[in-house]
Amino acid sequence: MRSRHIDLAGLERQQGKTFRWKGEYSYQLNEAQTLDTQLNVLQTFRPQIPETYREPHMLFLGNIDPDLQLDVLESVKRPSIVACDTMNFWIEGKRDALWRVLQKVDILIINDGEARELGQDSNLVQVAKRILAQGPKHLIIKRGEYGVLMFNEKQIFGAPAFPLEQVKDPTGAGDTFAGGFMGHLASVESLSDETLRQAIIFGSVMASFNVEEFSLNRLRRLTRMDIESRYRDFKRLTHFEDLS
Amino acid sequence: MRSRHIDLAGLERQQGKTFRWKGEYSYQLNEAQTLDTQLNVLQTFRPQIPETYREPHMLFLGNIDPDLQLDVLESVKRPSIVACDTMNFWIEGKRDALWRVLQKVDILIINDGEARELGQDSNLVQVAKRILAQGPKHLIIKRGEYGVLMFNEKQIFGAPAFPLEQVKDPTGAGDTFAGGFMGHLASVESLSDETLRQAIIFGSVMASFNVEEFSLNRLRRLTRMDIESRYRDFKRLTHFEDLS
Repeated sequence: MRSRHIDLAGLERQQGKTFRWKGEYSYQLNEAQTLDTQLNVLQTFRPQIPETYREPHMLFLGNIDPDLQLDVLESVKRPSIVACDTMNFWIEGKRDALWRVLQKVDILIINDGEARELGQDSNLVQVAKRILAQGPKHLIIKRGEYGVLMFNEKQIFGAPAFPLEQVKDPTGAGDTFAGGFMGHLASVESLSDETLRQAIIFGSVMASFNVEEFSLNRLRRLTRMDIESRYRDFKRLTHFEDLS
Repeated sequence: MRSRHIDLAGLERQQGKTFRWKGEYSYQLNEAQTLDTQLNVLQTFRPQIPETYREPHMLFLGNIDPDLQLDVLESVKRPSIVACDTMNFWIEGKRDALWRVLQKVDILIINDGEARELGQDSNLVQVAKRILAQGPKHLIIKRGEYGVLMFNEKQIFGAPAFPLEQVKDPTGAGDTFAGGFMGHLASVESLSDETLRQAIIFGSVMASFNVEEFSLNRLRRLTRMDIESRYRDFKRLTHFEDLS
C-alpha cells in the first residue's frame, strides 16, 4: 500500500480474528448468497481519527456499524463530498441508525439486493425515489456483471459492466468500484453530473480489473495507462449515435 | 394489425389450441422459469409462404422448430439480412437442426439463459466466441431489465435497459425487442456496426414500452414521436464523456 502512496496513519492493528464473510456465488458468479458474517475484531472497533485526517477533502464511510459511521462523520470537518457504503447486515439490524447516516451523506453506493431491501420494493426506480426522498442526493446501485445505475433527483445514468473473458473472483468488486469512483472525484473535486458519470466508469474499470484475478493481484501491477485504455474501451462498448 | 399496415397475406388460422407457454416470474420480474410449453396447433404447422413473400428484403425466423425455420429460409430468395430467434425447448430438443439454421443466419437474438445453454458456458464472452465460430455473424443477447449485449468478430456493444417506474408484464418483451430491432434495420437496409447499435436501442425502446402495460395495450397507441423521444432519453441515460 505504501508503494502506491496510501496514507496509513489511521491504520490500527488489534488482536483477534479479522472480519469474516462467507458466501456462495451462483453459477454465473454474479450474486453472492451470504452464509455467514462474523464481525470479530470489528465488533469492538472504534475508529481513531488521526489529527491529519480531521479536515478531509472528501470522505468515504466504509461498510461498518452505522453508529460508527456517524461518529466518524461527526469527528471531522464536513467535507464537500461524503459517500457511504453499507450491507444487508446493517439494513436488517440497524435500520434507524443507518437512516440517520444516510440523511447526512451525499452519495450512497450499494448493490441491487441491498437497494431492494433498503427501499422495500422490487422496482429500482421506486427504490431510488424512496431512498433519495429521505437521504442521499445520489444513489449508486451496483449490479455486478450487469453494470451500474445512478439515480438523483433529476436524472438516471446507466452503464453495463465490462464484458470479461474470464472472471476468477468477484470478491471485492464492489469495494474496488468505490475506490475508483472516489479516486476520480478526488482528482476533480466536483459533484457535477458529468463528473459523477465519469467516476462511475472509472469505478467500473477498476472493478473489472479486480475480478480478473484472485485477491488484489491484478491491482498490484495495474498502471494508469491500463486504466485509461479500458476507460476508452468502455466508451466504445457503450457508444451509439443519437437520432439526427 | 391492419391499422398499422402489417401485411397479413401469410396469416393462417387452424382449429385447435394455440401455442401455450407457462412460466413463473421471479420477484424482480426479470427471469421467467418455464413451467410448461405446449406447441398445440404449432405441432403440425408448416408455414405456407405466399408468392409475395418470396423475395424479401430481410427475414426474421421466429421461434419455431428449427427444421421449419430452415424450410422457410430455403423457400425464399435469400435476403441480405436474416435474423433468427429460438428457445431452450429447441436448444435442448433439436440442437443439431438448430446449428444447421444458425450456420445460415446473420443475426441470432436470444436471452442470456438460452445463450448459456447453447454455448455451454457461464461466461457470456466465451459463449459468444463459440456461437460466432459456428454460425451467425452477430449475436444479440437479451438480459431483461439488465439490457442487451451484442457480439461480433470485432467488437462488443452493451446497453442497459431503460429503467421503468412500473413493469406490469414482461411477457413479449423479447419479441417486441426483435420487432423494433428489425424495423430499424428494414428502414435503413444496412448491417453496419453503427446501424446495428441503433437498431438495438430501437428494440430496447419498443420492449420498454411493451412491459409497461399488459398485452399489446401500450403498443396500440404508441406513436413515432413516443419512440424517438425515448430513444433520445436512452442517449441521455447512457452518455458519459470520453477521456480527453
